[in-house]
Amino acid sequence: MTTTAVFPVPASAPADSAIEPRIVPEGSVGFVSPEFLHFSEPLTLSSGQVLPSYTLAVETYGQLNAARSNAVLVCHALNASHHVAGMDAERPDQIGWWDNMVGPGKAVDTDRFFVIGVNNLGSCFGSTGPTSINPATGQPWGASFPLLTVEDWVHAQARVADHFGIGRFAAVMGGSLGGMQALSWAITCPDRVGDCIVVASTARLSAQNIAFNEVARRAILTDPDFRGGDYHAHGTVPANGLSVARMVGHITYQSDEVMASKFGRTQRAPGPTGDYRYNYDIEFEVESYLRHQGEKFSRYFDANTYLLLTRALDYFDPARAHGGDLSKALAAAQARFLLVSFSTDWRFAPEHSREIVRALLKNQREVTYAEIDAPHGHDAFLLGDRRYHAVVQGYYDGIAARLGLGARRRVTGVLA
Amino acid sequence: MTTTAVFPVPASAPADSAIEPRIVPEGSVGFVSPEFLHFSEPLTLSSGQVLPSYTLAVETYGQLNAARSNAVLVCHALNASHHVAGMDAERPDQIGWWDNMVGPGKAVDTDRFFVIGVNNLGSCFGSTGPTSINPATGQPWGASFPLLTVEDWVHAQARVADHFGIGRFAAVMGGSLGGMQALSWAITCPDRVGDCIVVASTARLSAQNIAFNEVARRAILTDPDFRGGDYHAHGTVPANGLSVARMVGHITYQSDEVMASKFGRTQRAPGPTGDYRYNYDIEFEVESYLRHQGEKFSRYFDANTYLLLTRALDYFDPARAHGGDLSKALAAAQARFLLVSFSTDWRFAPEHSREIVRALLKNQREVTYAEIDAPHGHDAFLLGDRRYHAVVQGYYDGIAARLGLGARRRVTGVLA
Repeated sequence: MTTTAVFPVPASAPADSAIEPRIVPEGSVGFVSPEFLHFSEPLTLSSGQVLPSYTLAVETYGQLNAARSNAVLVCHALNASHHVAGMDAERPDQIGWWDNMVGPGKAVDTDRFFVIGVNNLGSCFGSTGPTSINPATGQPWGASFPLLTVEDWVHAQARVADHFGIGRFAAVMGGSLGGMQALSWAITCPDRVGDCIVVASTARLSAQNIAFNEVARRAILTDPDFRGGDYHAHGTVPANGLSVARMVGHITYQSDEVMASKFGRTQRAPGPTGDYRYNYDIEFEVESYLRHQGEKFSRYFDANTYLLLTRALDYFDPARAHGGDLSKALAAAQARFLLVSFSTDWRFAPEHSREIVRALLKNQREVTYAEIDAPHGHDAFLLGDRRYHAVVQGYYDGIAARLGLGARRRVTGVLA
Repeated sequence: MTTTAVFPVPASAPADSAIEPRIVPEGSVGFVSPEFLHFSEPLTLSSGQVLPSYTLAVETYGQLNAARSNAVLVCHALNASHHVAGMDAERPDQIGWWDNMVGPGKAVDTDRFFVIGVNNLGSCFGSTGPTSINPATGQPWGASFPLLTVEDWVHAQARVADHFGIGRFAAVMGGSLGGMQALSWAITCPDRVGDCIVVASTARLSAQNIAFNEVARRAILTDPDFRGGDYHAHGTVPANGLSVARMVGHITYQSDEVMASKFGRTQRAPGPTGDYRYNYDIEFEVESYLRHQGEKFSRYFDANTYLLLTRALDYFDPARAHGGDLSKALAAAQARFLLVSFSTDWRFAPEHSREIVRALLKNQREVTYAEIDAPHGHDAFLLGDRRYHAVVQGYYDGIAARLGLGARRRVTGVLA
């Protein structure tokens, strides 16, 4: 297996003191460790390039039933990983990114479902990507790692399903870029998806979305420490560029309202009479927050991976092969669908979800759509809004009933 | 006089071939040249620093009447200048930034009003700023130029009024950062402002607004070519940082809708079968547009000036000295007010203007408020929307009537 040992967060991150080591909170899947699945069959990519082999980092929660009918694939967004739920066995302070959603008795109930988290191909948390060694050269791939598309991820993940002997997922689910993967699964492998759950996502980026990605890329590409993408060979890291890229991202993940309520115009360290400092150091709390987020990100995320992920976002456009007609692109889909959007999400505003809903209805697909009036912007998909989780929980209860997976054995989460 | 010869746009900018040199279009003020007014009395700034002397670049259009009652001060936004209207006599392709608004027979009718454009103190188009020579050292001020506030600009501009013998402006007017200056004029010099016209502006930046400014500043400050602000001494220009800063700005100036209609997902140079290029070069038209805007800006705009202007935006908050109560801050104002906002402006959304309107009404001020349903986002304040210009034109006709300036002598613009 060709893997790199990279953790989803920096080694210097402080432990969460609220979590006592080795004590499992109610509703948690407990301590988890990734597996690294190696696939030696070449993968032909959308670009035409061929990846000779690859490794994917995977975590699973719950038990696959005998019929192999209860599997759920959770796809991740830009900077997340396979570590969806529970506490990393090696670093118990590292809680999965969708831990509030996935666990025993939670919306995605691991007492009944077998849940798989996969680090995307091309990412930097254990799956093969730009930081991995290119077997042909013995050096890190770096800038020479091939660009990937959402469809490439689906094909790579399909082999994970094969590995577990899963012919058809009970559900494929994701938020944001993860939602694109779920949607692409329903189009690309229609007979392998029972239900498709697409949260805070889109069927194609708008010009404004692409524009923000381009700003992020320019910040990275023009950082002298990027060195054409071969920064590893030069012993540098384009930390300034990555930091600016992340700051831009963070603004788009939050609503104007939530930034106003979290930070407002609060000053960080005003003079004795509340005076401004009259310099370009941190004046306002929001500046402190953004710089902190940017710097933290630049210490643990790989720049080539960030470029690759933003380009995959830009390129996703299943309607493109159908003259821009999304309903034609979705004609092949056989899944039932749950779409969720958030009122203050201006990155992928509700209209993006509504467009998908309309295209599905045109194909007479069974669609449930929830537009949640939440203040948190795009980030809402990661948060524990009660109505949002109740919708997802109710939807999964329906899936469980249809598949005869039985009733909930315990109640946590929004029902608790 | 201490001035620098810098033009508002790069010398390499192509001439607008639609404008024949020396032919004055209808409604244009014609060929104009700046004056450079030197003020040798020290100016004490909000920061407590003292600027020993300064020069302001100024253009004027129309004639000051004998009563000196018909003067209008036009304040500019981030990257504009004193060149508000007409064609620069030296570079006739350089049209003033608000030429569609100011001219004979236009909304701000130079047949009746004497209009003054002033390049802000600290800017880089002829007024004293970071690119000017510090008389104490004989070197450019660079990073040592003092930070300025909107109030400092008002005080500096008041001396321009004194220079022309104008005790009271018929109107002070501006959009965006220029609108802040108009508002500050009404608070700071209440007896010198007859009417105050505030377009697409705000009484204080939101956390999100500050966040975008901070991203722009980080891009500049962390560019190695910035060299602590002393790039001139090192013969460098932080072009990459300035370019990224400008790209971020451009996204916030436009609505999602207008970017969708201007650029959509149009590809720049797709392969023979419409294929993606699978690299980080320009793939989409919107990327080309942004890079072009960024690169152009980095060739003509000064980085220290950009930092200074964004900080002045952040700091503007007249309510701050009144416990956050904007109505108290506006209690001193005596002017009548016109506020204009645009429905798709998400940089300074209509709610920012409505807050000012409410605070003025609480003070029983006379307020006209127009919320224009225009698709262009923040940039709408610079464009020629017919309803917008009709509102401004009607308002100025009212000012002219009250001041006995007579009726329009010719009709152009929205009435034409």
